[in-house]
Amino acid sequence: MKNYAEQYHKETSVGLSENLSKTDRFVMYKTGPVLWVNHGMGIPSLSICLQECIKLMYYAETTDVTFMRLGTSGGLGVEPGTVVISTGAINEFLKPEYIQAVLGKKVKHDAILDKALSDELYECRRFVNTPVEKGITMGTDCFFEGQARLDGPFCDYSSEDATAFLRKLYELGVRNVEMECNCFAAITYRAGIRSAIICVTVVDRLHDDTLKIQKPIFLSPKAFREYEMRTFKLASAYFKDRLANIANNK
Amino acid sequence: MKNYAEQYHKETSVGLSENLSKTDRFVMYKTGPVLWVNHGMGIPSLSICLQECIKLMYYAETTDVTFMRLGTSGGLGVEPGTVVISTGAINEFLKPEYIQAVLGKKVKHDAILDKALSDELYECRRFVNTPVEKGITMGTDCFFEGQARLDGPFCDYSSEDATAFLRKLYELGVRNVEMECNCFAAITYRAGIRSAIICVTVVDRLHDDTLKIQKPIFLSPKAFREYEMRTFKLASAYFKDRLANIANNK
Repeated sequence: MKNYAEQYHKETSVGLSENLSKTDRFVMYKTGPVLWVNHGMGIPSLSICLQECIKLMYYAETTDVTFMRLGTSGGLGVEPGTVVISTGAINEFLKPEYIQAVLGKKVKHDAILDKALSDELYECRRFVNTPVEKGITMGTDCFFEGQARLDGPFCDYSSEDATAFLRKLYELGVRNVEMECNCFAAITYRAGIRSAIICVTVVDRLHDDTLKIQKPIFLSPKAFREYEMRTFKLASAYFKDRLANIANNK
Repeated sequence: MKNYAEQYHKETSVGLSENLSKTDRFVMYKTGPVLWVNHGMGIPSLSICLQECIKLMYYAETTDVTFMRLGTSGGLGVEPGTVVISTGAINEFLKPEYIQAVLGKKVKHDAILDKALSDELYECRRFVNTPVEKGITMGTDCFFEGQARLDGPFCDYSSEDATAFLRKLYELGVRNVEMECNCFAAITYRAGIRSAIICVTVVDRLHDDTLKIQKPIFLSPKAFREYEMRTFKLASAYFKDRLANIANNK
């Protein structure tokens, strides 16, 4: 996250804050009107970060706020390195919702992303030299069995079952899988904050089960870092374009 | 986690490794037969870490392995600063289970901790100058509404409903609430690894809703760090006692 903030600072000459987080759980950097926060892995960690940020935005009396999640993901039928802009977010039971326990009882929230924002981000692909696609994103709580992997410590299904499940996802329009999207979409929607998710794919799960990061022929740590910067490039292009538009309209 | 490893190294003179983790997502330190790993916040992050560690133990051909989670928690009817040894782990729907999605379908796993191990840990309270209690632990996915807090960005229930829920938990034998216990218990049980959870309580939720860490009169950052070391002290006492027993029996 620090890399992103530093890079944005370099590209725009906007001042870069120190780490504004007072806990060792998250980091937070500010570059002008853009705040960079890491949220950890998985929905509960994201949920804490997101709700704290919503409170922060409220107390800071901000208006016209946009939340954007940048991350990595497993792709489905897209070339590794592709940046996927989420058109929808489904949970691990394939429903566009986030299920929460409130005082011990089940409560469902719709997971809805901002269509206009995803379209604007897609338009910004002209500024970046990276494949960009739109598609539905699935969020799971388990990295291994939740995502039909065969290389976890437990696996009670066959390779054929796993492939059939991944193909079913593809046919539903799912283009990538991560571990936060439906909660992110639901909480921001509930808060009335427009939001988008852009994740780079680091593997095509329809063709391979494991992150091949250990085998440089497929994806070296250097390539992984370059992939991670692709979501930044798209987001950064969007921020610069939007802020230029705001300045021109003043 | 580094603090824990360094402190154990100081107390035992066992060699301390560098950070053995090759990713920036976790850290891992080794002090003799004890491995120290952080797992992030919430079940999905823990689940990745735990499954990777189980694979690691398998490939390292370890035997007689014990997993222990050390953490912070909100207490119920216990003095802040108390170390709670979990006798059971329930999920946010008050069931002793971990519900997973496997290929899009719901699968339940029993969340079971090792009774003998929790008894042995409880015996080790004689080595530490800290209140230690036994009790059931509840794990939730949401820090705010999942734990009946009133200070989140959303709250659709009354203060009375929240208090009634927390009292109900207390009557069920729950003494603390965190965000990982049921998954930790279920995955280790499924893997045949004996496990325990020891968490210090940083607040008594039956008396107060907010972590008073911002108000030094209640709990200063220094006091918070001291609390965090209490679980280490108990675990460390157990490791030293057990390793001494093993050495004596050789």
